[in-house]
Amino acid sequence: MKDLSPDRGFPVEEFEKRLSRLQELMGNKGLSAFLVCTEPEVRYLTGFHTPFWQSPTRPWFLIVPLTGKPIAVIPSIGEVAMRETWLDDVRTWSSPNPIDEGVTLLSETLQEVLDIHSKKLGGSLQIGLPIGSETHLRMPLLDFEKLKNTIFPHIFVDSTEILKSLRSIKSELEIQKISKICKIVSQGFSEISNFVSIGMTEREAFQAFRIRLLELGADEVPYLVGATGPGFSDIIKQPSDRIIESGDLIMFDTGSIYDGYFCDFDRNMAFEFITDDARSAYEIAWNATEAALKLASPGNTTSDLWQAMASVLETESASNDSVGRFGHGIGMQVTEWPSNTENDLSVLEEGMVLTVEPNLTWGNGYVMVHEENFVVRSEGIELLSIRARPEIELIY
Amino acid sequence: MKDLSPDRGFPVEEFEKRLSRLQELMGNKGLSAFLVCTEPEVRYLTGFHTPFWQSPTRPWFLIVPLTGKPIAVIPSIGEVAMRETWLDDVRTWSSPNPIDEGVTLLSETLQEVLDIHSKKLGGSLQIGLPIGSETHLRMPLLDFEKLKNTIFPHIFVDSTEILKSLRSIKSELEIQKISKICKIVSQGFSEISNFVSIGMTEREAFQAFRIRLLELGADEVPYLVGATGPGFSDIIKQPSDRIIESGDLIMFDTGSIYDGYFCDFDRNMAFEFITDDARSAYEIAWNATEAALKLASPGNTTSDLWQAMASVLETESASNDSVGRFGHGIGMQVTEWPSNTENDLSVLEEGMVLTVEPNLTWGNGYVMVHEENFVVRSEGIELLSIRARPEIELIY
Repeated sequence: MKDLSPDRGFPVEEFEKRLSRLQELMGNKGLSAFLVCTEPEVRYLTGFHTPFWQSPTRPWFLIVPLTGKPIAVIPSIGEVAMRETWLDDVRTWSSPNPIDEGVTLLSETLQEVLDIHSKKLGGSLQIGLPIGSETHLRMPLLDFEKLKNTIFPHIFVDSTEILKSLRSIKSELEIQKISKICKIVSQGFSEISNFVSIGMTEREAFQAFRIRLLELGADEVPYLVGATGPGFSDIIKQPSDRIIESGDLIMFDTGSIYDGYFCDFDRNMAFEFITDDARSAYEIAWNATEAALKLASPGNTTSDLWQAMASVLETESASNDSVGRFGHGIGMQVTEWPSNTENDLSVLEEGMVLTVEPNLTWGNGYVMVHEENFVVRSEGIELLSIRARPEIELIY
Repeated sequence: MKDLSPDRGFPVEEFEKRLSRLQELMGNKGLSAFLVCTEPEVRYLTGFHTPFWQSPTRPWFLIVPLTGKPIAVIPSIGEVAMRETWLDDVRTWSSPNPIDEGVTLLSETLQEVLDIHSKKLGGSLQIGLPIGSETHLRMPLLDFEKLKNTIFPHIFVDSTEILKSLRSIKSELEIQKISKICKIVSQGFSEISNFVSIGMTEREAFQAFRIRLLELGADEVPYLVGATGPGFSDIIKQPSDRIIESGDLIMFDTGSIYDGYFCDFDRNMAFEFITDDARSAYEIAWNATEAALKLASPGNTTSDLWQAMASVLETESASNDSVGRFGHGIGMQVTEWPSNTENDLSVLEEGMVLTVEPNLTWGNGYVMVHEENFVVRSEGIELLSIRARPEIELIY
């Protein structure tokens, strides 16, 4: 097991590297500035880390010029925290102010950044903004319309691809944090028989698991779904008051966090005994993960992983397409680009952290999902989750 | 103490009432349909409740026609869960599909809903969409542009006010859930001296509190900020490895959840002793909450509450404007409309659930925040958090 206690946060050099890669990609695309307004992106470039984003009231902005450090344009409530990051230029407005929720300050700052290039290039400059697949704009659309008008003739252009190629390759420091949370959660799964038992409600089982993960060192357990029963078809379920019985399966799938980085994997177990159908479904899913893990090396694609899993599932006539993919990236979010689908075709590179997540239909319309987390290394993978057993574990 | 174990979820009648109020407001504004794509809005109208929204990959849509039940247009991974709600019409696409991430299905369904009115009214119909203050569009902007073009000549119009007036008045069933989590967290605060002590790190103190809240019955503790020290200026802070010392203040501010509903309040305590300055800051903040709570009855405004708190703080020359408001609505989100600001002027109505949250600067640039949660009743307020003591509590 590697270093289990990575330092909190990142040294300034990490942010300098991220910025310099971003600015290189901006230059290649002819962008004069880059604007982000979502939590992972702002945190990725600054280290600004707070759950305060859960409040929908205030937008937060970060402008990245083509040279020099990013400029934060944020509500004054975040000023003290943002000044503790590596940024130098932090501009604030008193928020909430529905009449002008940062729009004037943002457009003035953008204009100032663009003016530097405007003198040289003249005309209409391009500002990168992630508005494609898997993105959203975390500001009122009406305010964005105002902003667009104010900065005209300069225009926003979609820069989702830049963000994707930037964030999907993780640094060793990022990998250490993901590895840490994978180990914590693996430990939690290995102890399930100590705190979950027949006669408990599903809700009690969930809370026992959540608490144990926190005790083991998870900072947070924001994503926890699962189910109990002879089988289950809803795999994004919240717990119910159903009482666990002998012969039940149990599935927990958790995205837990260490220092702002997620794991995302599940485990299936059974109480006391298991039907042949369920046992077989478990083994097919396990074989599908195994097939994909063997193929996960640089140069192969996410679609190769998909194909490897699909082949195992098809052989067993067990495929299911309701989930829509067989795994995805993980990191600062519980799911990130890319997706393991038939057509995704993203080329695997060293430093990508991914899940494989085949799922299949079995028995009475039930769904079985298996998931593992790994990082792509030069010669193959390093597993971050501790591998599920090839045969389902029974809880007595 | 009222009912401490409200039922999970809501009966169908609750959703019928919400829908009928929404459709009445839509009719008043001349809207032929209403579109929402954010978690609280979809949950408010359907009961669909899953942490799966944390994955940014897939958008989710709900179309509300002028008559009849809402129609869900969602990724197939959510079909089983959505069919368990009170909806009849659930349409799905296999997601992720970056080429057409639900846009075609969404625009066809919208068109179908609009056609019913189109025959009668002809021309350009209006679709309500919340794009104003405190909202965002949870879908790629590029996809929204496609959607706008496809449904033209029908247009989207801002309907933030409809959503605000709908969601800011809580039903008794909603209030019961908020009350429950307020009581759980109040209990947790009352026990702090049992599990937080001098010599612990701030991070250990945070985790002990988080775990205790789960043990006491909170479903989740997604929002927890706080600090320790002689004072603190960053009030949206994550914990550090700072070791708690004698004479420190400690502040925890949590938005914890019961059955999808938040509380949001903080408490300040001191270890062993407190300076006169800190004691005085505590009392000013307490007096400010007291002044606001006395004024919180139907007919008064959020700005009356702000003024009552500002007056106490000004008298003591202690005002601070970095937070930007002195409280806000709570419910399905940790903060909701309205805001207690000088100019907000929202009229208090029975069933609104709000916080009062004065904050002030003291000592060496430190900030002191106090917060209470209450529901507006016909003759004044019912406090939901158990009132903080007028004098700061010491932990030995």
